[in-house]
Amino acid sequence: MENCIFCKIIKKEVPANVIFEDENFLALLDIRPISPGHTLVIPKKHYRWVWDVPNVGEYFEVAKKIALAQKKAFNVEQIQAKVVGEEVPHAHIWLIPDPKNTKGEKTDFVTNAELIKKYID
Amino acid sequence: MENCIFCKIIKKEVPANVIFEDENFLALLDIRPISPGHTLVIPKKHYRWVWDVPNVGEYFEVAKKIALAQKKAFNVEQIQAKVVGEEVPHAHIWLIPDPKNTKGEKTDFVTNAELIKKYID
Repeated sequence: MENCIFCKIIKKEVPANVIFEDENFLALLDIRPISPGHTLVIPKKHYRWVWDVPNVGEYFEVAKKIALAQKKAFNVEQIQAKVVGEEVPHAHIWLIPDPKNTKGEKTDFVTNAELIKKYID
Repeated sequence: MENCIFCKIIKKEVPANVIFEDENFLALLDIRPISPGHTLVIPKKHYRWVWDVPNVGEYFEVAKKIALAQKKAFNVEQIQAKVVGEEVPHAHIWLIPDPKNTKGEKTDFVTNAELIKKYID
């Protein structure tokens, strides 16, 4: 969709710290992380809300793949997920490594991205 | 698991406002709702975290089914989802009809449960 920041990232018109990409979904680090490694998983096709995505099972299987990698990358027990979505009108799942975690750098996106990518199966 | 409140609800040893149940998952109203119709979706088998559930795609397909019914029941555009999970050590997805919604009663569980059930496909 025109003027959608996530659509622009998907089309590589805007740079982002992409950590995973397949045919239908893309995962990138959030530029305002709540904790180190905070990631957004988005569908490549534009949908307003997560519940509008037809293949929602596949969508959360991708989210799980990222969450399991985040757990290993930051050595945390839990990865929080949030579906809120008012800030950007393109469906997105937030994956937030336990905010009590103090490991990793909050703003060192390149290091955090490489760390997570290392553990993605 | 012994002493797990959600396992007791699944075994019908503890009453709950169940709005959906299939072979693997159960959905019930949260007793401390953030907004009317706030629902928990839980796996019938005990897992500590949502990301431990093997069939996570199927799990979120069930969550979507409930979310679409909540949208219709409370006439809201968005159903928030949260995976946090520190209060009860049994995997659960929170489905929270937009908290800005003022429709429905916050504590009238029976009415809210019937309303959502009416719209579950």
